[in-house]
Amino acid sequence: MSFPTHVTLYEVGPRDGLQNEKQTVPTEVKVDLINRLSAAGIPKIEATSFVSPKWVPQMADNAQVMAAISRKAGVTYPVLTPNMQGYEAAVAAGATEVAIFGAASESFSQKNINCSIAESLARFEPIMDRAKKDQIAVRGYVSCVVGCPYEGWIDPAVVADVAAKMGDMGCYEISLGDTIGVGTPKDINLMLDAVLTKLPVAQLALHCHDTYGQALANIYAGLGRGITVIDSSVAGLGGCPYAKGASGNVATEDVLYMLDGLGIETGVDLGKVIAAAWAISDFLRRPPASKVAIARRPQQQT
Amino acid sequence: MSFPTHVTLYEVGPRDGLQNEKQTVPTEVKVDLINRLSAAGIPKIEATSFVSPKWVPQMADNAQVMAAISRKAGVTYPVLTPNMQGYEAAVAAGATEVAIFGAASESFSQKNINCSIAESLARFEPIMDRAKKDQIAVRGYVSCVVGCPYEGWIDPAVVADVAAKMGDMGCYEISLGDTIGVGTPKDINLMLDAVLTKLPVAQLALHCHDTYGQALANIYAGLGRGITVIDSSVAGLGGCPYAKGASGNVATEDVLYMLDGLGIETGVDLGKVIAAAWAISDFLRRPPASKVAIARRPQQQT
Repeated sequence: MSFPTHVTLYEVGPRDGLQNEKQTVPTEVKVDLINRLSAAGIPKIEATSFVSPKWVPQMADNAQVMAAISRKAGVTYPVLTPNMQGYEAAVAAGATEVAIFGAASESFSQKNINCSIAESLARFEPIMDRAKKDQIAVRGYVSCVVGCPYEGWIDPAVVADVAAKMGDMGCYEISLGDTIGVGTPKDINLMLDAVLTKLPVAQLALHCHDTYGQALANIYAGLGRGITVIDSSVAGLGGCPYAKGASGNVATEDVLYMLDGLGIETGVDLGKVIAAAWAISDFLRRPPASKVAIARRPQQQT
Repeated sequence: MSFPTHVTLYEVGPRDGLQNEKQTVPTEVKVDLINRLSAAGIPKIEATSFVSPKWVPQMADNAQVMAAISRKAGVTYPVLTPNMQGYEAAVAAGATEVAIFGAASESFSQKNINCSIAESLARFEPIMDRAKKDQIAVRGYVSCVVGCPYEGWIDPAVVADVAAKMGDMGCYEISLGDTIGVGTPKDINLMLDAVLTKLPVAQLALHCHDTYGQALANIYAGLGRGITVIDSSVAGLGGCPYAKGASGNVATEDVLYMLDGLGIETGVDLGKVIAAAWAISDFLRRPPASKVAIARRPQQQT
């Protein structure tokens, strides 16, 4: 176990979290959330998605969000871009980093984006070429790195292969996602054993879901392997679509509490993240899906 | 990291969990819960507490519970005994194992049981003497092993000292409790560093609360140190009295899911524990405080 001294928190709440909300979240609420998170010291905040509003109406205000946020020096605001049209709109809106996605499960790829894993990666090649010319950083997401809702257990060698292809395509960072939260630390270690034969640990991020309560144990295991970038979602925004009432993204507050306790530096203020969690949760009229936020509810919301 | 191949689950829900419930839980509901847990394969189930009904009215039916449960071969049903009167009543009711408790925080000891740590241990000496003659096994709980609601951080050397004294008194096992759930894996490791200078790992159990969502990460760290006995509570029964709405005991289902995933044998059937969690939670008219139970809600309750 070789723990890092510094970890970069990559916040996915405003995009991955809010896109699952049924009620429309007004642009100003999204902007306030993003600004609170940057003010708390989070260095990477995935702000929105440049996807067709037909698919994800919640993200239809993507350009407005990008225009309205207070861009803090040193903070990056990546956006999800499923295709070239989205990429172009994102860059026009001022994005300096975009994210693309693939799966380690053929069935998930087919059901989620209607093509094979190989086809999904091929579709991103034109974006990679353009991004290189535009000097836009590209992050790659790999979903279902431990389990798949259709296939069950996923072979770590397949995860390593997809991650390596994304690295070869030019992704500066690969985020390894346990999309349905079924993994335990042993799965994470076996998966990382495979991926680390193809990519350096500095190029990897871990994206854990807390559906089975395993996220922090899995992240702890990942940190012990030298992982230095952790994806998380303020207030645990983003339920799991595969089990009613179940948790999805691990809460930023809970991850940060652990990192603080481990003495791992993040530059992020826990109290400010908790305040941001309560602000968005109060708007959504439900408590945060974060044990730390519940245990440390601020006396007065601001 | 040297993980065990087998772990003993020590279930605290029927006692530590239910004693915090405001509504009276009928004896037959408690008995049904205990029988479901033994049928699921849990080898140690703390069944009740022989404490004055003035203090804990919920446990006033302790002798009836002990008389009514179906005692399964190989399963032990320890009970909490705060004093000699409780000890005698427990043995008369057929208990073969009892539990005593101390704290690693002077302030907590004073506020919780109105005496110093040393006085609290001295009070248990007559019980230890009698238990030795009666061949009754005694388990010792140490609370506040990482933090205290009154003192904050607790010195691991004090934890080690209290744990060693309990071992010297004759406790066959010492359960180290992060009573307010504030610890992270680093705290657990530092605490174990100190305790393991005085006691063998085989004599230790870990009792984690999930108030800050850290329980599974902490247990994972403890397993990595060779801990082979884990305390947990079905459905996460037993809220935290120090923060409204906050979690207390880590859920047995969540611990078991992780142990299964790690390939650590327990002999416990997860599906049956989940069914038991939903049965008691349905009675209490609230969902289980367990992510696994929520994610895997049985289609039909039995």
